[in-house]
Amino acid sequence: MPERARRPAPKTTIDDDTDEQETPVRATLIHAPRDIRVEDVPDPSLQGSTDALVRVVAACVCGSDLWPYRGVTDTSEPRRIGHEFVGVVEALGSDVSTLSVGDFVIAPFALSDGTCVHCRNGVHTSCANGAWWGGEDSDGRPIDAGQGEAVRVPMADGTLVATPAIPDESQIASLLTLSDVMGTGHHAALAAGVGKGNTVVVVGDGAVGLCAVLASRRLGAERVIAMSRHADRQALAREFGATDIVDQRGDEGVAAVEELLGGIGADAVLECVGTKESMQQAIDAARPGGRVGYVGVPAGGAELPISQLFGSNISVGGGVAPVRGYIPELLDDVLSGAIDPGKVFDLVLPLEEAPEAYTAMDERRSIKTMLRP
Amino acid sequence: MPERARRPAPKTTIDDDTDEQETPVRATLIHAPRDIRVEDVPDPSLQGSTDALVRVVAACVCGSDLWPYRGVTDTSEPRRIGHEFVGVVEALGSDVSTLSVGDFVIAPFALSDGTCVHCRNGVHTSCANGAWWGGEDSDGRPIDAGQGEAVRVPMADGTLVATPAIPDESQIASLLTLSDVMGTGHHAALAAGVGKGNTVVVVGDGAVGLCAVLASRRLGAERVIAMSRHADRQALAREFGATDIVDQRGDEGVAAVEELLGGIGADAVLECVGTKESMQQAIDAARPGGRVGYVGVPAGGAELPISQLFGSNISVGGGVAPVRGYIPELLDDVLSGAIDPGKVFDLVLPLEEAPEAYTAMDERRSIKTMLRP
Repeated sequence: MPERARRPAPKTTIDDDTDEQETPVRATLIHAPRDIRVEDVPDPSLQGSTDALVRVVAACVCGSDLWPYRGVTDTSEPRRIGHEFVGVVEALGSDVSTLSVGDFVIAPFALSDGTCVHCRNGVHTSCANGAWWGGEDSDGRPIDAGQGEAVRVPMADGTLVATPAIPDESQIASLLTLSDVMGTGHHAALAAGVGKGNTVVVVGDGAVGLCAVLASRRLGAERVIAMSRHADRQALAREFGATDIVDQRGDEGVAAVEELLGGIGADAVLECVGTKESMQQAIDAARPGGRVGYVGVPAGGAELPISQLFGSNISVGGGVAPVRGYIPELLDDVLSGAIDPGKVFDLVLPLEEAPEAYTAMDERRSIKTMLRP
Repeated sequence: MPERARRPAPKTTIDDDTDEQETPVRATLIHAPRDIRVEDVPDPSLQGSTDALVRVVAACVCGSDLWPYRGVTDTSEPRRIGHEFVGVVEALGSDVSTLSVGDFVIAPFALSDGTCVHCRNGVHTSCANGAWWGGEDSDGRPIDAGQGEAVRVPMADGTLVATPAIPDESQIASLLTLSDVMGTGHHAALAAGVGKGNTVVVVGDGAVGLCAVLASRRLGAERVIAMSRHADRQALAREFGATDIVDQRGDEGVAAVEELLGGIGADAVLECVGTKESMQQAIDAARPGGRVGYVGVPAGGAELPISQLFGSNISVGGGVAPVRGYIPELLDDVLSGAIDPGKVFDLVLPLEEAPEAYTAMDERRSIKTMLRP
């Protein structure tokens, strides 16, 4: 129940009757590999003074959600899933100072306090009090995940970013990408030091890879080669500013990149997959002295060949993207229309069809699927 | 024999009698682990139009020379050794345009043409026509190594850097460090992005590690923690600008670093050893979002724990240092007296005592040993 309401309740409100029995809301759970269900869960209530209650407007499925879906990572018991959402603030704890009820907010894929030394260093994903959607807060209370109707957000000041006004429906998709994929693509580009005039290769044509193309052009890259074997993704890569497409992989793909770049590798390579093969391909595609920025979650044993890196002075940077810090800057460009990363959403389904959303992404029928509660 | 002599012969000249029988010169060879000998070798002569003949004024033993000395890397047959020297140009091929006979020159530890795309990118160690002292040139001719009396230098324009005037004897030591250790320490600092106000940890108290301390302070680091267990090296580290010394290693050393830095790791960590343990120590000593610059030759399987790097957004960069590109900038600071990296030389021996030079460094009785022909 709201401890504080500084604005009139928005159009969509949680059930605020005073009955002790709460009305359940719907949320997505993973029970086991390939077993995604939308079920009743308790309607969230404020539990701490830094909490916000957010009614979800849009959520989505992440490529990394496919790891447990495919059984690459374990699911020991049914759990809430989803870490990307935007929504409207319905209630605020007494210590929340930067948000108002009724605000439209973007939730990054990790929670952070915004005040610790790591947040101040811009590494919000290493926040001293950080937490994950579907995990636990610092008081041991469960945190809701994003693929549902409503979410309790601890550390709301540190975690959420409000838009200056309620956005137009046409802006929802791009705003939702700031939860993860656009910020993650941007992180890959920053980690690889992409700057004006650079040559860039992007390994991976998922939503993150495509956003990495967009981010690279935004940062001034002159030449961006997207490595993709799928016509629809190639087309979107070009729309996002890719100057070249390479549809081969491995050694053949690297040879094609070098041919395009006059016989040497790229200044910067953005690794947006997270497998051993994709990482090797990324390193092989970098020129001596080049830089690999990687954001693919290392699944299945990505490895770094140190002798090759040493001999060629190729640096490797990146990791779990601290997207919270990037939201304000990218938000400006979304709202101005300078970038439209929301185009990665090629399928929009009602929340109740979350199982189909996972299947569509798993089968690569969809680049990225939005869920609307 | 000189093809061209643009200045009067310097004080020290090669034997230029016209006898077909050349007078041998002395040079250091490694025959097998712990078997270093100084032997007669043919006096070098110009063989190509880009060659220079250099009479060596000073050379030295590198920490990496200890790998074959200790048998960590193989020595299949006797070979010339040494890749750091300074000397005086005695003769020049007809295509050399940036040097004059009589010039005092600094030879970086790798040969490069200075014109290929990698050299233009500042990665001279990846030169398309690059070669190594003791190796072969692009025409398959053997290249002399540095620990001897005289050296034929192919690609002399690209490889050698002349000082503006014949230096004073007191400057020889510092100029010799520009062949390798000072440039390599500088590379570690650049690879870790050391800048104004940074906190820096240096792992390794050899000559490179000590020069990395000096380089970090030169680049504006505010706090430089040298990890060293040897009193003499600790003292030199302080002289080079280290603000703190940590004499523990491994987890204890990392805990001591974090205590000094208010509970978190350093902005930048410079790995100047090259073992699995030292690399792990370097990564553990970096804060989330921090940067490891490594220049220790990866011997014995240095490894990169990618899950740790990913989770903490710690980047790893560096490699075989392209010191050729750094010589002009560092030379200015040596000649002005702003830096005095030559203090790493705590033992000077005649060339004939090269075996003792290796033993002294192997037994850590000497930080770095100079050899004077």
